[in-house]
Amino acid sequence: MEKKQMAILAVLLIAIVISAVLFYGEWVGGFSWVGISDGSNPQEQYQFSKNLDVWFMLMLVAFLMIFIRKFEWGVCLATILSAASSFVIYLALQQFVFDYGVWDQALLIKAVICSITLVIAIGVFLGTCKMWQYLLVGIAFAAVYCLVEYVLANVSVFGDFATDPGGSVLVHLCAAYFGIGVALGIRDKTAFNEPMYTTTHSVTFVWLASMLLWMLWPSFVCSLLPLESVTLGTITCYMAGIGSLLSTYFVSIMFGKVNPLIYTYAMLCGPVAIGAPLLSVGPWGALLIGLIAGAVSTLCFIYLQPWFTKKLGVMDMMGVHNLHGVGGWMGAIFVSLIVGSMTTFVMAIVVFVIVMVTGFVIGLVVRFTRGQMDAICDDDTDFVKSEAPAEGAEPVAASEA
Amino acid sequence: MEKKQMAILAVLLIAIVISAVLFYGEWVGGFSWVGISDGSNPQEQYQFSKNLDVWFMLMLVAFLMIFIRKFEWGVCLATILSAASSFVIYLALQQFVFDYGVWDQALLIKAVICSITLVIAIGVFLGTCKMWQYLLVGIAFAAVYCLVEYVLANVSVFGDFATDPGGSVLVHLCAAYFGIGVALGIRDKTAFNEPMYTTTHSVTFVWLASMLLWMLWPSFVCSLLPLESVTLGTITCYMAGIGSLLSTYFVSIMFGKVNPLIYTYAMLCGPVAIGAPLLSVGPWGALLIGLIAGAVSTLCFIYLQPWFTKKLGVMDMMGVHNLHGVGGWMGAIFVSLIVGSMTTFVMAIVVFVIVMVTGFVIGLVVRFTRGQMDAICDDDTDFVKSEAPAEGAEPVAASEA
Amino acid sequence: MEKKQMAILAVLLIAIVISAVLFYGEWVGGFSWVGISDGSNPQEQYQFSKNLDVWFMLMLVAFLMIFIRKFEWGVCLATILSAASSFVIYLALQQFVFDYGVWDQALLIKAVICSITLVIAIGVFLGTCKMWQYLLVGIAFAAVYCLVEYVLANVSVFGDFATDPGGSVLVHLCAAYFGIGVALGIRDKTAFNEPMYTTTHSVTFVWLASMLLWMLWPSFVCSLLPLESVTLGTITCYMAGIGSLLSTYFVSIMFGKVNPLIYTYAMLCGPVAIGAPLLSVGPWGALLIGLIAGAVSTLCFIYLQPWFTKKLGVMDMMGVHNLHGVGGWMGAIFVSLIVGSMTTFVMAIVVFVIVMVTGFVIGLVVRFTRGQMDAICDDDTDFVKSEAPAEGAEPVAASEA
Repeated sequence: MEKKQMAILAVLLIAIVISAVLFYGEWVGGFSWVGISDGSNPQEQYQFSKNLDVWFMLMLVAFLMIFIRKFEWGVCLATILSAASSFVIYLALQQFVFDYGVWDQALLIKAVICSITLVIAIGVFLGTCKMWQYLLVGIAFAAVYCLVEYVLANVSVFGDFATDPGGSVLVHLCAAYFGIGVALGIRDKTAFNEPMYTTTHSVTFVWLASMLLWMLWPSFVCSLLPLESVTLGTITCYMAGIGSLLSTYFVSIMFGKVNPLIYTYAMLCGPVAIGAPLLSVGPWGALLIGLIAGAVSTLCFIYLQPWFTKKLGVMDMMGVHNLHGVGGWMGAIFVSLIVGSMTTFVMAIVVFVIVMVTGFVIGLVVRFTRGQMDAICDDDTDFVKSEAPAEGAEPVAASEA
Repeated sequence: MEKKQMAILAVLLIAIVISAVLFYGEWVGGFSWVGISDGSNPQEQYQFSKNLDVWFMLMLVAFLMIFIRKFEWGVCLATILSAASSFVIYLALQQFVFDYGVWDQALLIKAVICSITLVIAIGVFLGTCKMWQYLLVGIAFAAVYCLVEYVLANVSVFGDFATDPGGSVLVHLCAAYFGIGVALGIRDKTAFNEPMYTTTHSVTFVWLASMLLWMLWPSFVCSLLPLESVTLGTITCYMAGIGSLLSTYFVSIMFGKVNPLIYTYAMLCGPVAIGAPLLSVGPWGALLIGLIAGAVSTLCFIYLQPWFTKKLGVMDMMGVHNLHGVGGWMGAIFVSLIVGSMTTFVMAIVVFVIVMVTGFVIGLVVRFTRGQMDAICDDDTDFVKSEAPAEGAEPVAASEA
Repeated sequence: MEKKQMAILAVLLIAIVISAVLFYGEWVGGFSWVGISDGSNPQEQYQFSKNLDVWFMLMLVAFLMIFIRKFEWGVCLATILSAASSFVIYLALQQFVFDYGVWDQALLIKAVICSITLVIAIGVFLGTCKMWQYLLVGIAFAAVYCLVEYVLANVSVFGDFATDPGGSVLVHLCAAYFGIGVALGIRDKTAFNEPMYTTTHSVTFVWLASMLLWMLWPSFVCSLLPLESVTLGTITCYMAGIGSLLSTYFVSIMFGKVNPLIYTYAMLCGPVAIGAPLLSVGPWGALLIGLIAGAVSTLCFIYLQPWFTKKLGVMDMMGVHNLHGVGGWMGAIFVSLIVGSMTTFVMAIVVFVIVMVTGFVIGLVVRFTRGQMDAICDDDTDFVKSEAPAEGAEPVAASEA
């Protein structure tokens, strides 16, 4: 058995032993039975379907990033590994460090929101690290996210809560700058030289993912709301979404044809930006926010992206910053203006600093444990394939396409 | 800045100004806070997930129409633009013209049902107008739909309600004939000459969309039902769906092999036709309706379509009439026979007349504002692409297919 | 009219006549109105969305099996036909043989679970029988499944219930060995010689299906649970799923690169194996079970599959046995160890015997009614296509791919 195989086996065995020990603890102490929420609580039933919907969105984020012809399966696997490791570590930290008493749907939702935040973040440096390193980043990110969540939601830190019911800051801003931090640590500029060709159907998957993410968004922003706010949250989320569907289109065609890889992303910026002011406006205010957010995001894709990525030396192939970073700031700014308090904006800056610094450190660790990358953004590195042997100008190629 | 760009900018600014004014109204008058339903109402919680499911279906209708190899992204964008404009105008009309008092999940559901009706309707003339014109049609359609809804649901108009809990008439019949009306107005017969090639995977997307639409259908027909009717509606919807899954297959193979572009459409005709008699039959009656509806729809695809489209000079590439038109009539007829009253059938004829006339007028407007179309049903007109440069008999073609 | 057409027409007419007679019964006797559950019951509302989710999963199982380049639409149609026939026969048997009194969401859920069990099972012999024979198998399977359900859930048979809330035995083990039984009856070994080429996008559909199945799984295992157990079921289902996501990856890379057609299947083995011990462990015990299940399933794909399929003479192209068979046994064994009673394990053996024998008999019927198969696993046998004519080394092939 090779050294590498032994290392892998060791990691697997460690995971099994740790969960066996924890299982033994449950078994003997019976604490799991004490600590499980009663599912007949109406809040639990309501949150059950939100919980699944957030997982649905997490999976769809993979397909939002799947447009590169030679890098489809790798995006899926990277998503799964990032999600799995951050999910389980988040839960462990909540139970054993933060003493979250009773496991309930809300805890599961918080955990999957932690994971989806990471899945958004990896978009910045996707394809520039080894596959197993997503597990590493997931473990580290869960700790960072617990910290960010603690800062934002703990009144004793700032003397006030952030107004961010739909996660503009906690999720989107956090994701974008954590991802940029990691990418700055990795500093692999070969991504700039890589021709990123798409195919008709790879981009059709992106349309599917984007359209379904748009429709699922109310489940995301309402998942942890008290029941009486859910209808308002649904209304403002969809109205903001309608706004960005429209303004993204107008701004796109002002500059010529529509680029599907801009449209499908920027059309989601209304829902991103409404996260913070979700319950602070009515339907028409939400429409206004969405119109502005979509327009600004599209302009960032067109004007900010080339300058920003060159300056930073970070490719951000998936445009994470233009959607989640810019959208996150807009959410924080809008809510500060509307409620007339700078608290949320200040907290956004604090989150920005925390995740940039921790992201950068984690990025450095990734860089120095990464080794040689033969190719970036390439499925061939990680997967066996079983395609038909190519036969030159085989006529069937056209019809099977 | 070019003239065209200025026009686009003007439209965007007008939208922003209007929503800013409405936002100011909310802000000062506080009416949005008065007018938002309390989400802790059980009906609201129940309708939350139905609301999202109908949006899910709306998005899937795009993928049901995505089989033409060179026209995939355009279908998605046309769907989005039609839905966005009709959704927001419907809501504005309800609030400011029809004085719908309190925004609740039911209002959002009605709005998205308006939008999905239009998304079905555009299938008749898809690809034969400019992309921005879907916005125009959306605005006009919202007004038409409000009128139809008012006629069907307002007892003072006919002295009675239509029996149409699942939308056979309000949605499907309305969609099919509004679409035909618009297409008659546009009168572009070049669609007949266009070779509509598919690919394996474009049709696989159609299978996915059709199968998921089928499974989501109970959310659609039950979305506005009182809670006590929901179980019956679920039962009859699925039983009618089972009926058309089966009879569509039998009729297809009676005429040779299965055409996936007939099967995936006609298999949905049971759920279309059960809309009106949804609560007027039991499970086995629903199965019977589904069996008949699937068989009739398939026969219409085979026999009616060539004659009908030639006579009309309207291509109806997506077979909207064979599924929604024919299915809508069947729903109206079945319910009239079962409840022993012609009211619903008469109302169906009224709806037919309203939407044909208004659709035709809107189609004329589209025709005279359309300008030159270089190509119909073609993504190249609207989108930038970033595919790999073709390299002649590049061997990779087969394996990347 | 040909003989074959007359036979098809006769079958369709028989179906119509039977449902017309049953409808007449409903109509006259009014029994359907008596026998429909009141949807305002909270349990009904809760189960509504679970019901749709299980149908969602059923449809996705088709896409999990859609990786063979030339056999995509056939998988969809086979899924639909199997599901439709088994669903309706299951319901008829419950109403008329097992005297299930009132139609409710639970009955619909049981029926679709019957159908999804068959859809899993056909994976073993998919493509080796005629399309219409899926209808035949569906009819027969519904009866077998009713029997299995009766044995497992009827305390008078064994003096005890099986502990199987999430269907490890009832669904997965039953599916795998019924499928193997049928395949043994058919005995078509040509599948071994068939080169099963994939394409990038056909496998991307598999990733999509697998990832969405994973996220939907709690709806499946919790669909028939009493409300107070739902939160625990959600927790253990997702934790087991996380376990198999991780261990499947580790075991895969121990043997080189990741095979997506192993990973996307084995990653679901945690949720399969947790079915029986769903409510008998806490979160960390579930994680342990998932870690073990994923690792064992992957090892079975690598080591057991070649030997097992050769010995049996059954190809099992979709790896049904490695996921559902092996996962089902693990569920039965784990729960027996944890609750300290062999009842469930013994019942698993009983189910194994029942479905192998009945499956084999049904397989023989399929074999002798099948006639000649010109090609296996091939869409050309059943579908008309409308692809672009191939033009030799047409340069467009690469970009349209």
